[in-house]
Amino acid sequence: MITEIPPRSGTAFRLARGDSLRVIDPDGGQVSDMLAFMADDPREALSNGRTFDYEETIRLTTGHRLWSNRSRPMLEIVEDSVGTHDFLLTPCSEATFRHFYPDKPVHRGCFGNLAEALAPFAVAADAIPTAFNIFMNVPVAPDGKIRVEAPTTRPGDFIRLRALADLIVGLTACSAYDSCGGSFKPIHYAIEPAGGDG
Amino acid sequence: MITEIPPRSGTAFRLARGDSLRVIDPDGGQVSDMLAFMADDPREALSNGRTFDYEETIRLTTGHRLWSNRSRPMLEIVEDSVGTHDFLLTPCSEATFRHFYPDKPVHRGCFGNLAEALAPFAVAADAIPTAFNIFMNVPVAPDGKIRVEAPTTRPGDFIRLRALADLIVGLTACSAYDSCGGSFKPIHYAIEPAGGDG
Repeated sequence: MITEIPPRSGTAFRLARGDSLRVIDPDGGQVSDMLAFMADDPREALSNGRTFDYEETIRLTTGHRLWSNRSRPMLEIVEDSVGTHDFLLTPCSEATFRHFYPDKPVHRGCFGNLAEALAPFAVAADAIPTAFNIFMNVPVAPDGKIRVEAPTTRPGDFIRLRALADLIVGLTACSAYDSCGGSFKPIHYAIEPAGGDG
Repeated sequence: MITEIPPRSGTAFRLARGDSLRVIDPDGGQVSDMLAFMADDPREALSNGRTFDYEETIRLTTGHRLWSNRSRPMLEIVEDSVGTHDFLLTPCSEATFRHFYPDKPVHRGCFGNLAEALAPFAVAADAIPTAFNIFMNVPVAPDGKIRVEAPTTRPGDFIRLRALADLIVGLTACSAYDSCGGSFKPIHYAIEPAGGDG
């Protein structure tokens, strides 16, 4: 069953160990910020630093795992039709909107959407780490400079991640202008039970 | 006054707004993991994601600021004789020692040293974010792969950071084999009052 995340909004849900999360860009050109916390203790959370350490790359795709701050693998990327995701940047917030888009209306961004969606799961806003930004296109130049470009996704592109533990997942449809090429689009996702792919 | 952090250990202290922290590599070839938390509420902490976002680079040096998870600048790099630091990787822990050095004795690493030093300041181990790893040499290849190389520092190399808020700072002398080229050396630091540099 496919669930739609409307443009500039977010949600949170449980994902059981063994189940997969499929995140789909239905129209192309959209980004989805993802967070994960251990269901039995949400102080254990996704960590970009631990992931870069263990996977020895900042470019995560099929075969790579996403790790927690306590050095446990949380999710494995088992399918990826895109191969371009970001794990460097934090979800946009009111403050980042004011900084990057001073002439545009302030939006609470993926950060505000995730904070609201995760509150019922006992995750405080301050405990939100750097997100795994699915489909986000952030090239790093040889001198270290980064820029945010429009995603390369075409309609129907997707990533599938298998849960390696019982998780709480936060997921958004991006709210920022640059990240999604100036357009705000929905994101689709599906939770697929263990064994569905053999 | 110069204080020495012995090899494979760490410390924590207050740094008042306006004061500077000078971190010196006395012998060359050593790394120092640094964390910062707001003194009035340590839930506000250093964030590599926010810093990359606002500074638009992963290579931080003189003139760049280090930002908090609440989008406030915490420290500004005001002098830097090296220019090579890492903000991608988390401090080594018992788990990373077991992973990367299975044949060597396990050490609690900078993570364990920071957790102990920060406990009196009400910072829990789970609240330790990705550290700013001073002098750490982590090249990123065009395909995103990263590797940990020996620091390029010579004896006496240093970085100076000015506090932009009242902070709690955690600081180590690195405990891992790869990060410091297989040698364990001390780190020196000094707190320099505001106005000392004009």
